[in-house]
Amino acid sequence: MSRKSRLKKQLLRSIKTSPKTFWQLIPEQDFSLKELVNELEGLIRDGVIEYKNNEFLLNGSTELKPRQNVRCGYCSGSGLKIDNTFEEALRKFEKLTENRPLPIAEYDQGLMHPVYLAKKAAFMYERGDIEGEEIIVLGDDDLFSLYAALTGLPEKITVIELDDRITGFIKKIAAKEKVKIEVLKKDLSRAIGILEESFSVFVSEPPESLLGLKMFVRAGMSTIKNRGAGYVGLTTLESSLSKWLSFEEWLLSNNAVITDILRDFSLYPEDINKWSDFYSAYPLMKKTDFKLNIPESDWYASSLLRIEKVERENFDEEDIYMDEETIVTPGKGN
Amino acid sequence: MSRKSRLKKQLLRSIKTSPKTFWQLIPEQDFSLKELVNELEGLIRDGVIEYKNNEFLLNGSTELKPRQNVRCGYCSGSGLKIDNTFEEALRKFEKLTENRPLPIAEYDQGLMHPVYLAKKAAFMYERGDIEGEEIIVLGDDDLFSLYAALTGLPEKITVIELDDRITGFIKKIAAKEKVKIEVLKKDLSRAIGILEESFSVFVSEPPESLLGLKMFVRAGMSTIKNRGAGYVGLTTLESSLSKWLSFEEWLLSNNAVITDILRDFSLYPEDINKWSDFYSAYPLMKKTDFKLNIPESDWYASSLLRIEKVERENFDEEDIYMDEETIVTPGKGN
Repeated sequence: MSRKSRLKKQLLRSIKTSPKTFWQLIPEQDFSLKELVNELEGLIRDGVIEYKNNEFLLNGSTELKPRQNVRCGYCSGSGLKIDNTFEEALRKFEKLTENRPLPIAEYDQGLMHPVYLAKKAAFMYERGDIEGEEIIVLGDDDLFSLYAALTGLPEKITVIELDDRITGFIKKIAAKEKVKIEVLKKDLSRAIGILEESFSVFVSEPPESLLGLKMFVRAGMSTIKNRGAGYVGLTTLESSLSKWLSFEEWLLSNNAVITDILRDFSLYPEDINKWSDFYSAYPLMKKTDFKLNIPESDWYASSLLRIEKVERENFDEEDIYMDEETIVTPGKGN
Repeated sequence: MSRKSRLKKQLLRSIKTSPKTFWQLIPEQDFSLKELVNELEGLIRDGVIEYKNNEFLLNGSTELKPRQNVRCGYCSGSGLKIDNTFEEALRKFEKLTENRPLPIAEYDQGLMHPVYLAKKAAFMYERGDIEGEEIIVLGDDDLFSLYAALTGLPEKITVIELDDRITGFIKKIAAKEKVKIEVLKKDLSRAIGILEESFSVFVSEPPESLLGLKMFVRAGMSTIKNRGAGYVGLTTLESSLSKWLSFEEWLLSNNAVITDILRDFSLYPEDINKWSDFYSAYPLMKKTDFKLNIPESDWYASSLLRIEKVERENFDEEDIYMDEETIVTPGKGN
């Protein structure tokens, strides 16, 4: 038996609060774009909503209460603050990257707002994954390597990137700022060779086909030592939960335990990416019953997964409450 | 090859900031209590730190910078705010539960601060997992069922609980407040019978042996429909990442995809639990080289996992950038 639609509820309570464009609806729901488009088309066909002047409106009433925003307004819901080291590095980064290379379609690029580089670095710092660490970045149109170097915290930073505009830009700024970043042009579809088990942390925002995800993360996992960590961006927009299931199973079968999943952690704003020319090439734009315009608001967000390379162990499964690790559970017969 | 110790770094930079008791150190690191005790004992043996008047002190110097707190001060790092519906329900809950049943060792009980019931409910609300939903709570010494009922949002709430003090208390308050909560006394180690696939969401804070985790979550998964969700508490304190790996693999093999992992989401304060008598029965207290006192600060936190029951699908793995779901990736040859 299948549950009644959670997506329908997320949409109707959002539209009840106020009419929304397609792009405004995206951050108010959890599902993939494919599922979202299907649901909206169904709701229009059933006469529950209508689409007028680029906005979705309720046709009748709904018992649902208007959507209540539950995210902290101070940290925009991330739970993290950017100050001291991380704020100083962010200011420098923004000044130094004013003329950075813009996304090109050939490599499926897209830039997160630099504030999310700072938040990612702050979260990594809390885990002990940045200060004094050897970090490798697999694909770096976001320029995370530069941000990390500007904090002065990592021991070593290496970047693997195919796009000459980006490798050139990183080298130029690193030289200017006198920070050390090793930049390598390498094809991730081949074995990583001498880089194997040379790092403690890898960072990547892979393409989202299952093949692309596995290729980037396989390379990342091969570069890190045992108990090393990986930071991987993954969306709910271009990956359904069935794809998440396949990807997570593959991670675990490679001894990568998932330690954190931070939903919609990084936002990719329209104005930084200047990718309005891309839209005509998106399959999405040809697929909808309702006519889509270029976005007027930011909508593309990516979740952040942290994984860690661990060894397998066997656990006794004799007692419901106790095993060798539950040492603050009251012992029987003590 | 194994990475140099992330735990050692987390400890030394924390102690460098100021001397810490064992209990104060716990929230500043990520590892299990067993690993933490081993590391501290090793650092004492190696002369890196010493233990004096219940506090750990640095013996020499360290290159690490003092620990920087990166958590938002407004939401205590959760990213969530408690207002409107969730704040009103919290005020009512706190008044109504002043004389609630306290934890007893027999059922491995422990109470999270009610503010985390509110935060859990707010996060569930955002997902569409509380308003109009049929929710089952497996084990409820936290009284989440009462909090959820007081928001007025769920369609139906059922509780499974063995402790007569708790079932009695829930029934009494529910009657007084005229909210409907179905309370069942049931053994979770047996098949769940008529409750199968009757709910859209389950909530549980299971015991942390692998057997206990599986027993509670197996019961939860059997009660929910396809695309239903589960909220499961799990700590890093009593479960090593190797145990997390085993548990996550088991989840996925049961078609439960992990959609969120919110680290240290819920705090279990000392003063609410009044469990100072428990400490003498904790295996931990007999295991350490350094002498432990009863805690002077809160230290027990639990992470929140959200899982969802999904169907398996096959994905084509032909292109690095594109599959049938990546519809906002620029298409080739368009």
